[in-house]
Amino acid sequence: MKAALVGTDGTLLHEARRATDRERGADAVVETILAFAAELRAHGEEHLGESAVAAGVAVPGIVDSEKGVAVYAANLGWRDVPLRALLSERLGALPVALGHDVRTGGLAEGRIGAGRGADRFLFVPLGTGIAGAIGIAGSIEAGAHGDAGEIGHIVVRPDGPDCSCGQRGCLETLASAAAVTRAWAAASGDPDADAADCAKAVEAGDPAAIAVWRDAIDALAAGLVTALTLLDPGTLIIGGGLAEAGETLFTPLRAAVEERVTFQKLPHIVPAALGDTAGCLGAGLLAWDLLSTEVSV
Amino acid sequence: MKAALVGTDGTLLHEARRATDRERGADAVVETILAFAAELRAHGEEHLGESAVAAGVAVPGIVDSEKGVAVYAANLGWRDVPLRALLSERLGALPVALGHDVRTGGLAEGRIGAGRGADRFLFVPLGTGIAGAIGIAGSIEAGAHGDAGEIGHIVVRPDGPDCSCGQRGCLETLASAAAVTRAWAAASGDPDADAADCAKAVEAGDPAAIAVWRDAIDALAAGLVTALTLLDPGTLIIGGGLAEAGETLFTPLRAAVEERVTFQKLPHIVPAALGDTAGCLGAGLLAWDLLSTEVSV
Repeated sequence: MKAALVGTDGTLLHEARRATDRERGADAVVETILAFAAELRAHGEEHLGESAVAAGVAVPGIVDSEKGVAVYAANLGWRDVPLRALLSERLGALPVALGHDVRTGGLAEGRIGAGRGADRFLFVPLGTGIAGAIGIAGSIEAGAHGDAGEIGHIVVRPDGPDCSCGQRGCLETLASAAAVTRAWAAASGDPDADAADCAKAVEAGDPAAIAVWRDAIDALAAGLVTALTLLDPGTLIIGGGLAEAGETLFTPLRAAVEERVTFQKLPHIVPAALGDTAGCLGAGLLAWDLLSTEVSV
Repeated sequence: MKAALVGTDGTLLHEARRATDRERGADAVVETILAFAAELRAHGEEHLGESAVAAGVAVPGIVDSEKGVAVYAANLGWRDVPLRALLSERLGALPVALGHDVRTGGLAEGRIGAGRGADRFLFVPLGTGIAGAIGIAGSIEAGAHGDAGEIGHIVVRPDGPDCSCGQRGCLETLASAAAVTRAWAAASGDPDADAADCAKAVEAGDPAAIAVWRDAIDALAAGLVTALTLLDPGTLIIGGGLAEAGETLFTPLRAAVEERVTFQKLPHIVPAALGDTAGCLGAGLLAWDLLSTEVSV
């Protein structure tokens, strides 16, 4: 897990990491978070001359940010962990905000990262899975049950591969870094080849790699066009491992989206700017928001 | 066109209609709107004992509600009509709100119609086309360019029929009232048979009608599940001509959506409640909103 001390304007003042060690169990992970936060506050008092005035924490899974409860996180074995109350108690009644990891990262990308100034944006990290954060007027839309933004599970090929979610042809099964890794390992015959290797082979002009890459981009463009038809964002921010391919991804992706849209307005399609600090920075922004207006993510 | 005098709580105090007569040209339609609004205000002064304190108007096409301009309406021949300023001038500098017809209707359904109390909803009228209004926390999301909500043009069958928008397999080509009319006219061999006739034949147990109906519902469920995966609404409000089939539509539609969702939370799926007065009532709500907080639709 990553944590940071963040200034009012989103500046990263101090960053630190701890092993999550999820095999120690659900309660131990919670305790690590609480102790880590307390240490970080002490660090600020000692080295920056002032104490944190609020805290933000972003967690995966299903999050009820209004109630401050981590409802469910399969990876961590969490069910209904009242993380906001626990953290506030540990930090001497400091105001605490709880957010969802992807939406919190999206908040940071939208406000101080690649979407700076974009009033309406969609943040789509392409990693093991594909997630999404819908930015509207300075905050991230959580939906009625905290599930909004699941672009990875919109069906782009109704006859496509089975998805772990139970549907078929979900975007995630076709265009995540994991999907490209799978497809390229199969096509190249190298079981250790991954999505980054595929991108390199594309750059070297390998026709088999180009076919795998094009197929993923075609699916991704289909999913993004569906999302922009519904949401009309001004900016699409693409992040995650697959976006590290840079223009090898972005040039053909922009062309594929442009080819598919008809009446829809073409958004700016840009790479994420904050990398894996987006979640930390977003949690910091959530904390600062507690002291001004309320934003729930 | 329809117009109304609307009370603070959304009560319909007086309703009136005028022919649009679009063949008279773009300017004549604008003049009809201005004169109609002035008459309506006079009616309020004369019969209700008070004058309107604000006005709202909802128009089709592309609407810039922040600038108060009807940017484009193919049906009416409008391009960049500064309708808010024109109407305000005609009404003696009254505050005027300009909204988009579907989003304005959605605002009314969400606040005082079928979605009353729903914090997150999606309003989908199934008529000649299929449109959508995304309700979030009391207002309707317009998107970056005023185009949000175009659920009728998400592709649900990539190899489906050509759509007038230039894409293939758009929801609108498969599940609008017009699409069902086309399919049933072809299947029944009666060129005058329409979607309402198809619904009646379904109720009578006609197997050909049932096949047409099921196909439309299957496409509609696919489109709605895509939208709810992205947006996580608490309520789906289905309106328009096709929804007049009542439980003949809603019972199998709920089942089809339920069958498709896996991890997604199932929203309430309910018929629209306000019929063709939704636009009028929504315009009234926009007008009242001018006097309290700002809401742009």
